[in-house]
Amino acid sequence: MSRGITAPKGFQAAGFYSGVKRKRKDLAMMVSQSPMNWAALFTTNVVKAAPVLWGESLLKTGKPLQALVINSGNANACTGEQGDLDLQKMVVQTAMTLSIPETSVLVASTGVIGVPLPIEKILAGIPQVANCLDASQDADDAATQGIMTTDTFLKQASMTVEIQGKEVTLGGMAKGSGMIHPNMATMLAFVTTDAKVETALLQELLKEASDESYHMISVDGDTSTNDTVAVFANGESGVAITKDGEGYRLFKEAFFKIHQTLAIAIVSDGEGAGKLIEVQVIGAATKEAAKRMARSIVSSSLVKTAFFGEDANWGRILCAMGYSGADFNPKEVSIQIQSEQGLIDLMKQGVPIVFDEGLAAKILAEEKLQVLVTIQDGEEQAIAWGCDLSYEYVKINGEYRT
Amino acid sequence: MSRGITAPKGFQAAGFYSGVKRKRKDLAMMVSQSPMNWAALFTTNVVKAAPVLWGESLLKTGKPLQALVINSGNANACTGEQGDLDLQKMVVQTAMTLSIPETSVLVASTGVIGVPLPIEKILAGIPQVANCLDASQDADDAATQGIMTTDTFLKQASMTVEIQGKEVTLGGMAKGSGMIHPNMATMLAFVTTDAKVETALLQELLKEASDESYHMISVDGDTSTNDTVAVFANGESGVAITKDGEGYRLFKEAFFKIHQTLAIAIVSDGEGAGKLIEVQVIGAATKEAAKRMARSIVSSSLVKTAFFGEDANWGRILCAMGYSGADFNPKEVSIQIQSEQGLIDLMKQGVPIVFDEGLAAKILAEEKLQVLVTIQDGEEQAIAWGCDLSYEYVKINGEYRT
Repeated sequence: MSRGITAPKGFQAAGFYSGVKRKRKDLAMMVSQSPMNWAALFTTNVVKAAPVLWGESLLKTGKPLQALVINSGNANACTGEQGDLDLQKMVVQTAMTLSIPETSVLVASTGVIGVPLPIEKILAGIPQVANCLDASQDADDAATQGIMTTDTFLKQASMTVEIQGKEVTLGGMAKGSGMIHPNMATMLAFVTTDAKVETALLQELLKEASDESYHMISVDGDTSTNDTVAVFANGESGVAITKDGEGYRLFKEAFFKIHQTLAIAIVSDGEGAGKLIEVQVIGAATKEAAKRMARSIVSSSLVKTAFFGEDANWGRILCAMGYSGADFNPKEVSIQIQSEQGLIDLMKQGVPIVFDEGLAAKILAEEKLQVLVTIQDGEEQAIAWGCDLSYEYVKINGEYRT
Repeated sequence: MSRGITAPKGFQAAGFYSGVKRKRKDLAMMVSQSPMNWAALFTTNVVKAAPVLWGESLLKTGKPLQALVINSGNANACTGEQGDLDLQKMVVQTAMTLSIPETSVLVASTGVIGVPLPIEKILAGIPQVANCLDASQDADDAATQGIMTTDTFLKQASMTVEIQGKEVTLGGMAKGSGMIHPNMATMLAFVTTDAKVETALLQELLKEASDESYHMISVDGDTSTNDTVAVFANGESGVAITKDGEGYRLFKEAFFKIHQTLAIAIVSDGEGAGKLIEVQVIGAATKEAAKRMARSIVSSSLVKTAFFGEDANWGRILCAMGYSGADFNPKEVSIQIQSEQGLIDLMKQGVPIVFDEGLAAKILAEEKLQVLVTIQDGEEQAIAWGCDLSYEYVKINGEYRT
């Protein structure tokens, strides 16, 4: 099991069962011993949950944070003025418990929407979760458990790089599953680091990393009211990262890698997903065209059901590229599918290839599949990740609320 | 059963089994005794089937047509040069059989893609289907059967209006099911009329009618390589329709109505669909905003699975509006759901309403549901139609090819 958000120096975390969910942990907290520079991306949905509006207002001030508190089981979205009041109560209770300013507390919520928070349970839980704060594998795991909803496994990652002769560590946790789509679908992802990074650079890095990770995954195309990706840098490693400073490239690589790892974990655990589909488009005229095509393929319900049926249906892949909005010449498209069992050519320069059905069946029976699409318009490429569309997806979402 | 494409004067049609499909009719033909002005909209997919490219080239000439021939079971898409040659053979064979110019023959194909047409069977079938040409209910039905793929019922419509003291009739047939989405998804729709309408006006009317019908339905968001909507006017009623002429409004209404009827039939028969969902958004600032919201709701996998689960999940409806790209104030949204069993308020001006779960269950058990969304930004409104997302959809599409 990978370490998570307390892997970097100076961070503590905890998870707790406060009674919002039926059985499992539903409250998580993360604190830093020193103020954290931070950056965040919030949902682009017009309908934003109370904690998202609070986070956006904090982000505008550009001031450091000291704590993050998250509840799961209830999203505090579409809850009207009561939702705003409940959010404020969570902020005040956390600030009082930790003796820190209210404006240094970021909040996130995830779960059912339109139902008022069971706020008394959460308020009672906050001092208790704070009591459990620790820096350890157990603390990482407990915090990550506290943010899960229909997730079936813990999503964590950590990396250490040596910069200026010192160790710089990054740690992350995420929750996803269902409604995962480009432009911030229902998911929470938090990355901590003990590097010292200025707020503006952190925001720039987060934007770029998200474009290659969270924005390139799709489960079902819905975007939610609560999505939040945030990064926190407390400087405890003693290493300052600047654009022209030593080790910038190394830090940036680790930063991208950790977000990509969390994003892939999210899509692997898409509701009802049995297969992880990685689609790489190469040879596009522009980066944007490559991204559009890759995302269109992983987002297509017909492509997704074909993978569920283990059907090497290149026609649906080509069709999804065709309505992606990117232009290309269908006569220059080659499509290959591979897994650990081997590789098959499905189409070469626009011509369907007669392939070995037996080998195709073997390849497609695997849980990790790669689709390689080659066009001949230029040098740009992109990768997107998706999953298959199964009976289980319909079951989970058809029976979610009731 | 409604009459279809031979309801207007001077049209004949037929359907025939040529052996492309396993058992059912797979070839359809429609001819007019006099040349037809025509208009069409083709798929926006970059990947276009051979018959679509032929249709586009005919449309550019602006010249009248005399016949339409359609095969089902094989889409002649992604079939390379062989596909172009096969298309030409279909055109030549039809022209020879009917003794008409090749450039007066429109072709459409639907079915699997990437597999060469069994062209010999189709060429042998063309004289045979021509032999069956007739104007009758049976002829309408046979032609419509000839264009079906996974459709489970015939989609036909006809209307007669009195203009200038004479009868003007419109008839239509369509096939759909799966991949139905705004901007021309996998579907064919053909409307005939014995009115005399100039080509330019016909194209304008078709564009407008499609914006309120085919472009407002969604089954799964995929758009296909073969979509074609075409209208044909042979003037046999002796009534000329012009923009400032008598009866224009009446004709336009009938024209819109017939396309809407076909579009609703298509979405009602979406693959695996058990429910027809009509979503009306009223009070929007612009028509475009109303359309975006309505389409976003019917296209959402989470909304669709909620209706499959008969769950009055207003949160997913509001959420889908939120990522539609249209701006609105969530605090001014009211949402109602109704069916023959009654009506429930789910949200009033942004506040969730506690509703009678028993009544909700009764209402949602019906096969036809209406969602009424009211915002308070203006006077514009739009209607979109969709269906639920069921286990059956996954089954049909997961096992289609193999």
